[in-house]
Order: sequence, then C-alpha cells, then structure tokens
Amino acid sequence: MAAPIDFYFDFSSPYGYLGAMRIDALAEKYGRTVAWHPILLGAVFKATGSAPLPTLPMKGPYSLHDFARSARFLGIPYQQPPVFPLSTQLAARATLWIAQTQGSVKAIEFAKAVYRAYFVSCMNISEPEAISTIASAIDLDPGILLEGATSEDIKTRLKEEVATGMQRGVFGSPFVIVDNEPFWGVDRFEQIDAYLKNGTI
Amino acid sequence: MAAPIDFYFDFSSPYGYLGAMRIDALAEKYGRTVAWHPILLGAVFKATGSAPLPTLPMKGPYSLHDFARSARFLGIPYQQPPVFPLSTQLAARATLWIAQTQGSVKAIEFAKAVYRAYFVSCMNISEPEAISTIASAIDLDPGILLEGATSEDIKTRLKEEVATGMQRGVFGSPFVIVDNEPFWGVDRFEQIDAYLKNGTI
Repeated sequence: MAAPIDFYFDFSSPYGYLGAMRIDALAEKYGRTVAWHPILLGAVFKATGSAPLPTLPMKGPYSLHDFARSARFLGIPYQQPPVFPLSTQLAARATLWIAQTQGSVKAIEFAKAVYRAYFVSCMNISEPEAISTIASAIDLDPGILLEGATSEDIKTRLKEEVATGMQRGVFGSPFVIVDNEPFWGVDRFEQIDAYLKNGTI
Repeated sequence: MAAPIDFYFDFSSPYGYLGAMRIDALAEKYGRTVAWHPILLGAVFKATGSAPLPTLPMKGPYSLHDFARSARFLGIPYQQPPVFPLSTQLAARATLWIAQTQGSVKAIEFAKAVYRAYFVSCMNISEPEAISTIASAIDLDPGILLEGATSEDIKTRLKEEVATGMQRGVFGSPFVIVDNEPFWGVDRFEQIDAYLKNGTI
C-alpha cells in the first residue's frame, strides 16, 4: 500500500484552510490516505526570515482580497476573521493529542471543525473556550482534551512535528509531500492531481 | 471596446515567462487585448522588503524545482539559466523603445523573443550583445535599438512604468490587472479566465 500523503498546515493559514477542505477528496480519488501535520508557521518564519502575508507592504491588502476570492473560486465558504493571524499552538496541540489518544480519523474531524470555526464562524481559536466548544460539538470531553493538549508530552510532540517538517523542506501552509515530491500552496493542487495520476509531471 | 488587460512582468521572472507564453491566448479567447508592461522587480522589492525567490532559505531550492515543474505542467519549454536572476533593465528599456517607435505588436514579439532567449536558450539577456542578437533575429536594427534603449527619454519611461505599476499595487511578476481586478502569479490564470468569462468570481 502506498504511503500516506503528508499534509502540513497552520490553523491560521487561509490557504491551509482551503487545502484542508480539499485534500482528503483528492487523495481518495487515487486510493491514497492523508497524514495531517499541524505545524506553527511562526517557528518556520523565524528560520526563513519570512512573515505573515497580511503584514507585508502591498502583498498584505492583495492577500486579504485573494483569500476570499480564492475561496469563492473553489466554492468553499469563507469569512475573514477579525483577529488574524493568531496563535494556533493550542489548536495544533489539541489535534496531536486527539490523534494520539483517539486516532487520526477523529483528529482530522477536529482539525476541519477548528478550521471552519475560524474561517467560517470567525471564532477566536487561540482561546481554550473556543477549543472546548469545538470539542464538545464532536463529542470530545473538553476538560480532558485541554489537560492532554497542554501536557509536556504533547508540547514536545508539536515541537517535533515542526522540526521534522522543516527538515523535510516545509516552509509554508498548506505544504503537501507526495512520495518525496513537495508542493507548496493550494494553487498547486492541480499539479498534485496530475502527479498522483501519472507519478510524474 | 473593453480596455486592454494589463500584464506586468520582469524579464528574469520564470513565472513571468510562463505567463507571457499564455496571456495573449487567454485574452483573445474573450476578445480582449493585452498591454505589456516590463518592470524591474528589484525596484519593487526595495519598497516591499522582499527578495528574489532563489535567494530565500528553503523557498530557494523549492522554487528552482517548481519553476521547471510548472513549465512541464503547462507544456512550455524551460531551461534554468545558470546566470539567475540578472539585470533586466536593458531588455525592459529596449521593449519600451520598440513599443514607442514601432508599436506594441513588435514590442510584444521582441519581449517573447527575449523571454525565450533567456529561459530556453539560456542567453545572458543582461548583455547588449544578447539584445542585439535577439533584435536582429526579428528584423530590428541592433545599433539603432541600443541607442534608443539607452536614451534619457526611455530611461524615464521605464521609471514611470515601475512607479505607475507600484501605485496600482503591482508587487510581483507576472501581475495581471483586468478592469481593476488584480491577479498575482501564473497560478491565478484559471481565476483570470473565470473573471473574463463572468465579470466576477
């Protein structure tokens, strides 16, 4: 059986959200599974000397326009959250804890719910209250989740995810690796489709 | 008649080259014309605090891989030039001089020839000898071209193109403006197609 497709994402990345709404269907089309890897772009940007798109001169205003337009183009609901970007550490840790204790299917369900809470309902997903609400809605115990998500073990796991991602060349979100072939951006999904189909481009 | 589509590009931009090979056909599909605007990304990057892709940590190696892969995906010939990036001032000025003295059709023919010389034949298009060779091949007098391209009038024209582009929000290459709607990157050409078709996205 082929290895899973690696899907790296940050919860405050609009293009990561758009990718998250598409990656499973794309993989399934070719009988592949997806390994979801929440990472922290802040840590990556420190290493690459980059910064969040909306903070950049000229690129900032364009990006805000392009986030919403790209979502409309792909037929995916989108609202620009007023608090943006924000800390995604807790959401990422919670995802890893769910994966470790309940398996990846539940973790992916949670990750998609977090993304929708942020980019459709505009909830402040940096806050424990928001994470609790999202968890409850998919039948997870919020108290146990928050305790697990803030354990030393899970903090270490997230650091390892970020470090491993960077070692593999991940520098943005979404970042997809298919059999060692790297693809950056939701605008590379057509190339990913071609690569999955033909094994080459 | 609808206004021309504005196509901003830098001659040392691989994605600008890929866009240049596609923009006229895309516009023609919807009965539109294209106004080609050579600009200097160096000047733009100074204002935005950005830098050429290949010089950036992690993004650099990925970009070199993605340039060639994107070209293959689009079915466009591509060779990574060994001298990259390079100064595109002379090529840009020559394009503007041709547009001013022989009209835009000839200028576009020249611009495409320069791009192919750089990204297919790997000529060093920063050098007057290369510009002369390219000009001769499309029946332009190289001596008159080089004299015109280095005149004060044309130097000022190029500065104006860059300044006007930046006032309009242009910060990369290719950058396309359709009826005030801005699109950055050859990976937005599908969105441009939808916009030209429906007048909205």
